[in-house]
Amino acid sequence: MSQTDASAAIAAILDHSRFRTAVGTMEREHDRTVEDIIRLTEIPAPPFQEAERATAYLGMLRAHGLEEVEQDAAGNVMGRRRGTGNGTTVVVAAHLDTVFPAGTDVRVRREGTKLLAPGVGDDTRSLAVNLAFLRAMDAAGIRTRADILFLGDVGEEGLGDLRGVRHFFTEGRHRDRVEAFFTVDSPEVDRIVTGGIGSKRYRIAFRGPGGHSFAAFGLVNPAYAMARAALTLAELAAPADPQTTHCVSVLGGGTSVNAIPNEVWMEVDLRSQSAAELARLEAEFLAGVEAAVAAENAARSIREGLVTTEVVPIGDRPAGHTPPGADIVRLAMAAVAAHGYAPRQEYSSTDANIPMSLGIPAIKIGSGGRGGRAHSLEEWIDVEPRESLRGMSASLATILAVAGMEVD
Amino acid sequence: MSQTDASAAIAAILDHSRFRTAVGTMEREHDRTVEDIIRLTEIPAPPFQEAERATAYLGMLRAHGLEEVEQDAAGNVMGRRRGTGNGTTVVVAAHLDTVFPAGTDVRVRREGTKLLAPGVGDDTRSLAVNLAFLRAMDAAGIRTRADILFLGDVGEEGLGDLRGVRHFFTEGRHRDRVEAFFTVDSPEVDRIVTGGIGSKRYRIAFRGPGGHSFAAFGLVNPAYAMARAALTLAELAAPADPQTTHCVSVLGGGTSVNAIPNEVWMEVDLRSQSAAELARLEAEFLAGVEAAVAAENAARSIREGLVTTEVVPIGDRPAGHTPPGADIVRLAMAAVAAHGYAPRQEYSSTDANIPMSLGIPAIKIGSGGRGGRAHSLEEWIDVEPRESLRGMSASLATILAVAGMEVD
Repeated sequence: MSQTDASAAIAAILDHSRFRTAVGTMEREHDRTVEDIIRLTEIPAPPFQEAERATAYLGMLRAHGLEEVEQDAAGNVMGRRRGTGNGTTVVVAAHLDTVFPAGTDVRVRREGTKLLAPGVGDDTRSLAVNLAFLRAMDAAGIRTRADILFLGDVGEEGLGDLRGVRHFFTEGRHRDRVEAFFTVDSPEVDRIVTGGIGSKRYRIAFRGPGGHSFAAFGLVNPAYAMARAALTLAELAAPADPQTTHCVSVLGGGTSVNAIPNEVWMEVDLRSQSAAELARLEAEFLAGVEAAVAAENAARSIREGLVTTEVVPIGDRPAGHTPPGADIVRLAMAAVAAHGYAPRQEYSSTDANIPMSLGIPAIKIGSGGRGGRAHSLEEWIDVEPRESLRGMSASLATILAVAGMEVD
Repeated sequence: MSQTDASAAIAAILDHSRFRTAVGTMEREHDRTVEDIIRLTEIPAPPFQEAERATAYLGMLRAHGLEEVEQDAAGNVMGRRRGTGNGTTVVVAAHLDTVFPAGTDVRVRREGTKLLAPGVGDDTRSLAVNLAFLRAMDAAGIRTRADILFLGDVGEEGLGDLRGVRHFFTEGRHRDRVEAFFTVDSPEVDRIVTGGIGSKRYRIAFRGPGGHSFAAFGLVNPAYAMARAALTLAELAAPADPQTTHCVSVLGGGTSVNAIPNEVWMEVDLRSQSAAELARLEAEFLAGVEAAVAAENAARSIREGLVTTEVVPIGDRPAGHTPPGADIVRLAMAAVAAHGYAPRQEYSSTDANIPMSLGIPAIKIGSGGRGGRAHSLEEWIDVEPRESLRGMSASLATILAVAGMEVD
C-alpha cells in the first residue's frame, strides 16, 4: 500500500456514515469514558500486583459484550469482537500496570478538565478509551474483516519486562492468529512508535573469599574484577545508527572499610534499536566480565578462593521495527495527519517490542488528549473533550483501517 | 638498658616484699575486680557515646584517691598518682569505647569463670584492672619516681580514629610531661604491641550530571572514573617490609538501572608499618583518583557537566614504632617472660600509635587472663583467678619498672 493509497483508505473511513456515528457516540459518551478512567485509575495496579484492576477490567470487557472473555495464566485479560473474515486477529492492547508501588495514593484530583493521579495517563486512560472504541463500533454497527481482540495486559513497566505481552505471544492461545498489534499507550497521537528499543539488563555479583584488609592483603578482590568489567563495557562499540547504548548504572557491596569485600555487584543496561547489535553487545560484555574475573584471579592470590560471578538477567526486551512501508504505519501516519497533527515515527520500549521482534506489524498509538509527568506522582491528563476526541478519532480510524472496516 | 639489665630490674621488683604485697592485694580483691568489670561492661559505650561510662569511671578514679581527677575536652577521664620525681609522667591507659552500637544488649552472662558480653574484654576489663593496679600499689605503699597518670580514653575503635589519645597528645595539658605510655588493651600479655600500623582511610564520592541510560548515552559516567581509580590503587606498590597494604573495601551508588549514576562512592583503606611508605601510598592514590577523573572527563562528553570528586578522610592513624632496644620494650619482655610466657612483639593499631608516632616510648600490654571473639556479640573473657593474676602481675611489674619503683 502506497502512502497515497493509505490516505485514501483513511479518507474513506472518515467520510463513512458509520464512522461518523461512532465518533458521535464517543462524543455523547465522553463523560462515561472519563468516569471509567477515574474508576480504573483508583484501583491500584503496582508492578506484579495488577490482579484487582485486571478483575475489574475483565468485568468491563464482559459487560461490553465481547466473546471469549478470559484471563490467561500471566494475568492478562481479553475478549474478542468477531470480524467477518477467517478469524485472523488485530490486537488492541493497553497495559494494566503502573510504575507506582503499593500504598501510593492513586485518588484522582480534578482541576477543570485536568485529571491528576499516578498512572492516570500511563496507561489507564487507554484502558477506558479502548472500551469507548468498542461501544462506538457497536453503536455504529461497524463491521471489520479481522477479529479485534481487546487486551488489558500486565507487566509492561520496568521489571515487569513486558511479561504480559511476552506470554501472549509465546504461550497464549491466540498467538498464531495475530496479523497486527496496537498498543494504545499514553495520550499523544502524533508520536507513533514504530521501533522497539531492545534492552538487556543484568545484575552481576562478583564474589571472593574476602578477608582483613591488612592481614589478608594480597588476596583477590572482587571489587577490582568488577572495576575491570565496568571499564570493559565503557569501551565497547556503541554505534549511533542503529542507536546502541550501554551503562553501568547501580552498584554496591562490601561491609567494612577494613575488609576485602566478600561480594560486590553492579547493574548494567544494554540497549539497541537493532537485535543483532544488541546480541553483539551482550556477547562482548559477558565475555568481558569473564575476562575481568580471570584477570583478577591471575593478578592476586587465590589461595583462599577464586573470584566468581553470578550473572542474573533482570531485563530482556527484544528489539524490533515495523518498517515505514508497512500498511499499519502508513495508515497510522495518514489517520493522524488527517486529524491535523504532524505525525512522526519514534523508537521506544513498549509492549509493541514483542510482536515487532517476531515480525508481526505492530505500533504504539495514542489514547488522545494531552498529558504529562508520567512516572511521577504529579502525572496528569487533560480530558477536554474536543482535543480528546480528535485524538481518539485518529486512533480509532487507524485501528479500523488495519482491521478492514467494511466501507461499501 | 641491656636485656640482662632489664631482667635484673624485673627480678628486683618481683622479689620485693611490697610487690608481693601488691599481688596479694590483687588476689584478695579479685572478686571486686570482676564486679568492676561487670559494672563497667553493662554501661553501654558505643562509638562517640562514651559519656555515661566516662562519668562512671571518673567517679571510680576519684574514689581511688587520685589527684587532679578530671575530664578533658575530648571526653577522656584521668587522674594522677604522684611520684617522687619531678613530675614526668607514665600514662597507663585503657579505652572506654566499644565497637557496639547503641541498643546492643551489654548485660554480662556468666558461665563458670567466663564472662560473656560485647566489649567485656576489649577493653572494659582493662579499665577495671587498672583500678586494681592502683589499689594494689596503694595497699603495698609502693612509690615510683614518675607520676602515673591513669587514663580512660574515648574513641579508640573504628571511626573514633584514636581521637581520645590524639587529643591527649596534641591539646591535653599533660602532653609535654609524658615519658612513657602504656595502653592496657585486651587480656593477652604475651603479645606485646611495639609497632603501630598507620592507616589512612577515605570515602571518595564521584559525581556527574547523570542522565537517562539511553537518551543521555555518551555523557561522562562517574562509575567509570571510580573503576579506573580502584584499578589504579590495585596496582600501587605495597612492599612486604615495611608491611604496606591497600584495599577498596565498600562501595555503592546509582539509583536506577536505566540511569547513568549521579553519584557513586567507595571507601579505601591504606596501611603501612612505615609513616613514609604510608605517605607515599596516600599521595600516589590521591593522584590516581585525579588522573582517573581526568581520564573519564576526556573519554566521554562533558556537555552536561564534569565528573568531580569529594575526598573525605574517614580515618587517620599514624604509623610508629617503639624500637626493640627501648627500655619499655625490654622491661615488658622480661616481665612477661618471668611469668612463664613466651613474649613476642607485634604490630597492630592501638592507642599507642599516637605516642609512637611522636617518638614517645609506648607499647600495648595485656589485662591478664584469656578471652576471645572481640568485636563480636559472642565476646568473652575468662576471669579464672590464677591465670588472671599471673597476667596482671606481669603487666603491673612492667609498669612499675618503667615508672621507677623504689626497691631499696
